Amino acid sequence: MRIFQHVTDIGDLSAALAEAQEVKRNRFAWQNLGHNKTALLIFFNNSLRTRLSTQKAAMNLGMNVIVLDVNQGAWKLETERGVIMDGDKSEHLLEAIPVMASYCDIIGVRSFARFENRADDYEERILNQFIQYSGRPVFFMESATVHPLQAFADLITIEENWKPSNASKPKVVMTWAPHPKALPQAVPNSFAEWMLAADVDFVITHPEGYELDPQFVGSARVEYDQMKAFEGADFVYAKNWSCPGVTRPEDYGKVLDDYHKMMNWTVDAAHMAVTNNAAFLHCLPVRRNMIVTDDVIESPRSLVIPEAANREISAQVVLKRMLESL
Amino acid sequence: MRIFQHVTDIGDLSAALAEAQEVKRNRFAWQNLGHNKTALLIFFNNSLRTRLSTQKAAMNLGMNVIVLDVNQGAWKLETERGVIMDGDKSEHLLEAIPVMASYCDIIGVRSFARFENRADDYEERILNQFIQYSGRPVFFMESATVHPLQAFADLITIEENWKPSNASKPKVVMTWAPHPKALPQAVPNSFAEWMLAADVDFVITHPEGYELDPQFVGSARVEYDQMKAFEGADFVYAKNWSCPGVTRPEDYGKVLDDYHKMMNWTVDAAHMAVTNNAAFLHCLPVRRNMIVTDDVIESPRSLVIPEAANREISAQVVLKRMLESL
Amino acid sequence: MRIFQHVTDIGDLSAALAEAQEVKRNRFAWQNLGHNKTALLIFFNNSLRTRLSTQKAAMNLGMNVIVLDVNQGAWKLETERGVIMDGDKSEHLLEAIPVMASYCDIIGVRSFARFENRADDYEERILNQFIQYSGRPVFFMESATVHPLQAFADLITIEENWKPSNASKPKVVMTWAPHPKALPQAVPNSFAEWMLAADVDFVITHPEGYELDPQFVGSARVEYDQMKAFEGADFVYAKNWSCPGVTRPEDYGKVLDDYHKMMNWTVDAAHMAVTNNAAFLHCLPVRRNMIVTDDVIESPRSLVIPEAANREISAQVVLKRMLESL
Repeated sequence: MRIFQHVTDIGDLSAALAEAQEVKRNRFAWQNLGHNKTALLIFFNNSLRTRLSTQKAAMNLGMNVIVLDVNQGAWKLETERGVIMDGDKSEHLLEAIPVMASYCDIIGVRSFARFENRADDYEERILNQFIQYSGRPVFFMESATVHPLQAFADLITIEENWKPSNASKPKVVMTWAPHPKALPQAVPNSFAEWMLAADVDFVITHPEGYELDPQFVGSARVEYDQMKAFEGADFVYAKNWSCPGVTRPEDYGKVLDDYHKMMNWTVDAAHMAVTNNAAFLHCLPVRRNMIVTDDVIESPRSLVIPEAANREISAQVVLKRMLESL
Repeated sequence: MRIFQHVTDIGDLSAALAEAQEVKRNRFAWQNLGHNKTALLIFFNNSLRTRLSTQKAAMNLGMNVIVLDVNQGAWKLETERGVIMDGDKSEHLLEAIPVMASYCDIIGVRSFARFENRADDYEERILNQFIQYSGRPVFFMESATVHPLQAFADLITIEENWKPSNASKPKVVMTWAPHPKALPQAVPNSFAEWMLAADVDFVITHPEGYELDPQFVGSARVEYDQMKAFEGADFVYAKNWSCPGVTRPEDYGKVLDDYHKMMNWTVDAAHMAVTNNAAFLHCLPVRRNMIVTDDVIESPRSLVIPEAANREISAQVVLKRMLESL
Repeated sequence: MRIFQHVTDIGDLSAALAEAQEVKRNRFAWQNLGHNKTALLIFFNNSLRTRLSTQKAAMNLGMNVIVLDVNQGAWKLETERGVIMDGDKSEHLLEAIPVMASYCDIIGVRSFARFENRADDYEERILNQFIQYSGRPVFFMESATVHPLQAFADLITIEENWKPSNASKPKVVMTWAPHPKALPQAVPNSFAEWMLAADVDFVITHPEGYELDPQFVGSARVEYDQMKAFEGADFVYAKNWSCPGVTRPEDYGKVLDDYHKMMNWTVDAAHMAVTNNAAFLHCLPVRRNMIVTDDVIESPRSLVIPEAANREISAQVVLKRMLESL
């Protein structure tokens, strides 16, 4: 594997899930693979879970790890050719990326949406430059539009907690929920993409205007009535996102309605009551009593902690496959 | 050992000191113990000695180390239940702590006194939350009220430099000394606690109003006449601290008198002259000619550098014992 | 090797270059040497290439690495004796340096010129204090006046790319080039020093007033006519530097003329046309179309990426020799 961005990059999902369980049973079994190999983790944005879980995964594999924090403000890279660089950008990416690549074997990059304009974010310029100019395998540690390490961990968690009864596959509902700030679409984009590729019955529910980009949600069923969407759900995946700007690009990155008016979208016991005793998932960090009530997130059906713990596993499978491809 | 906070956590002091010497003689002898084990070191506050010595100790033991710097301002954790999290706190500790714990085997935390109010600091809310919610061994890398890695290193240093003559045990004097800023009581609290548990003759001297909390100083002898306290001392341990607020909680964290008036408390040659050729100790960093004069800290009887070097040893004993308890 | 500052510290250059190639062929062959040895890398200033390449080199050798970022503003060290430390400096270097040294085996330090006054920078006070008080091998990761890891990498790159024809040795031209900010002289100082010691025909070209310090350039030929200097060059090494203040100390660290007036010094195709199909070198980061045009830096004769990659090799030779001296 040379790029980890989309669900298609991981290939057959059953094989990937089986490999995840193999890794989880014995996470130190592949240290010959990582011996004298170096992962460079580049953070243009803050990170807690991704930073820790990816370091842990790389060390599990016997790799060396170098973490590089790049203050997005302090280190501005020029990206255009022909520019006279007499301003605040002291280096061109055409030098910076190959140089960083020369000191490592595998590169992970985190770089969030900037919300300046939709096209800039959705063309994934920064990550694509790393893919194009580094000559190394590149994995996305959350980009402007995707967070595949999260979605893979989510899928692992769903598979571990799905106990088939009548239904042949679980009903998974991804629900928008209120939040005081404008958040990116990376997590819901990837979750949708992965669920559509997995063997689940997938439904998305959100207020009108928050339609996700078709490249990620494809033909997924969207149900604007949240309670109706929750009916019979086996897994509820809550997440806020700002307007993706699909129909009105000028609304991209906006919060369409004051969150105080949207508090009926908070996942609470009444919502969960109409589900099939659904498990609750969230990528974290989560704002309690905005996204989800205390009682739901603390209930025995809340999987948020094992879900976060599976971030180590998803990262390790990705790194393992990249090591195998070197 | 699952918690390292108080002197009682280390058990028998003679055994701990013997183990410290064993570790010091061959610090790389326990790498099988730490192999594939990960220490997560979380810094809510700045650190030089603790950061370096604890990393070194963990690596001596063959552990993987992940250092996490948490800007206290940038990452505010909600600690109450029932709150609608629509403010500046984006994560609840009930999620954050178990998640961090899931990526490591042992957790060290540094979090200083905030001086907002005495009760908040003295109940050690942050550290206790890590103990309660992480499910991992937790050691204190200086908290609001204690700095046990320092006190253990101090004790090791005293033992290494005590040459019994007439007295069966050394006289150890902890003296307050002037400083331009308000400092926490963590270091004097722990030093007192450890000295009272050790086989030494312990005396504390400080201006009136700086009485330390009884939970740490217990029945220790307090001598308000500094020169009298120094008479016959074998070890002088200097440290500034702000008002502990024991009798007047409203004075907690205050500097009671302008330091210019207190400069007769600076440890100088005249003070040392009345001792039994005492060794000089300080936890560092130290402000010269405030806490201690150049000539005293540079004298052959100054042990501040080997004392700091013993921070690696105290940390390694603590980590070793925690590894043994996994 | 106990100090790595000047070209003389590396000894015979042919031997050093041969060792560099040996390291490059098998960079993991000396891990017994670094086992259980710790490199402490202290950054008083920002770093990308040096930070990554030196970590990589140390890990290649099997060493443990601790990186310490010291915010120059936040951690001010007192350097004078006799001062009453009641200001903003909370620690004296006489304590700080030996303590840091006690937790490691080898120390690397980066500390740039401050441009406050020439004497302060050129006496290398900070680095010399590490040499004097640490008791450890100390290598310079760019200081106020030198950047020897860069110059060694430059020399390796020149040797790798010199294909003798008529001339018995290559003509190497170091040229000043325009830049919007005042930059230190560390890179040109070291490059000159290393080239003068190497078996090359060395020429320096710069506008009048930018004469480098004689301790570094010695009797090197200076040619003020840039195009004339370029004639027949085999290697062109471009770099901006501010006024070294050799003849007028009051001009130290200044940009003598507005860069807009100096743009004819930018290395472009017309410059390269008069060379002997010269290779282009620059230490990076480089401002395109100020220092060098896009077409020159992107041409097949541009060696800037392999030159940067050789930073790993130069650092590894230095660390290897320091390990051998322990």
